[in-house]
Amino acid sequence: MADVSEATGLEKGGVYNHFATKQELACEAFEYAARLVCDRIEKAMAAETDALGRLRAFLDVYRRSPERSPIAGGCPLMNTAIEADDTNPELRRRARAAIERWRGLIATTLEDGMRAGDIVPIDADAAASTMVATVEGGVMLAKVYGDPVHIRAAIDHLESYVNSLDARAAVRNA
Amino acid sequence: MADVSEATGLEKGGVYNHFATKQELACEAFEYAARLVCDRIEKAMAAETDALGRLRAFLDVYRRSPERSPIAGGCPLMNTAIEADDTNPELRRRARAAIERWRGLIATTLEDGMRAGDIVPIDADAAASTMVATVEGGVMLAKVYGDPVHIRAAIDHLESYVNSLDARAAVRNA
Repeated sequence: MADVSEATGLEKGGVYNHFATKQELACEAFEYAARLVCDRIEKAMAAETDALGRLRAFLDVYRRSPERSPIAGGCPLMNTAIEADDTNPELRRRARAAIERWRGLIATTLEDGMRAGDIVPIDADAAASTMVATVEGGVMLAKVYGDPVHIRAAIDHLESYVNSLDARAAVRNA
Repeated sequence: MADVSEATGLEKGGVYNHFATKQELACEAFEYAARLVCDRIEKAMAAETDALGRLRAFLDVYRRSPERSPIAGGCPLMNTAIEADDTNPELRRRARAAIERWRGLIATTLEDGMRAGDIVPIDADAAASTMVATVEGGVMLAKVYGDPVHIRAAIDHLESYVNSLDARAAVRNA
């Protein structure tokens, strides 16, 4: 609470005028940070018309310079998932819901792509889990090493993976 | 400290007989947990004679049932990397060193495999980062969802990736 007082310039009592409890403040802060991340990914993906373009747009969000990407400070979804894990079931539930919103968007994109004949038949759920896992692990490494080379390696790998899912390239190369 | 007293049955003063400070206790607890994880991976890899076998043995550590694997409680390396991140530089340094020991072992294995003609030419450092990132992200998802399906998806993906690095299979399929 002392940090919040300092950052906002509000007295502790002033902060409590806006949030009934510390828990409410933590949850609202998480929802705000999660919305920033999810909105950014959704906006980038919505600008593309086909599934492969959307998946590449999602990867591009994490390829950009660390200062402008969700890497600065680490990923709030993962940070909250890990820090709230055994200690704060409500925050953990919210972290899981935000991750599922993101993972579900990727799975749906993969399914749309398969239906349109753009993407080879795969297990969309497993692929979405793998893509979110690889990005989150890459963000974690970039943060702990203080070096974006690790998230770039993860994104390069996922880009090759997305290319391997291209049904039309698979036909051309057959 | 109350949790440590309860778990050990020692009075707070008794705990401080063994550790001069809370920081020392946290660092020793981290080193112990990190050693368990790293020893397990190193032992599994050492039992194999070639690079591809070693990489598959590393993945198998994470494929086993969650109760017996480093997933229970999440990965202590990642948990510490994220929780200590901005608040405890000494713990963060130790988390980074443990992750680097693990990541370096995989990079060295990839380089050995390339020298032996078992593995196709790749950027070993980038591949090692990707493999650690994917495993760590998979562990995080499995923990936050309470479902090992997410780490299994990540491991299946990495197994396909390792298969794609097999230089002799590449020649056979050419």
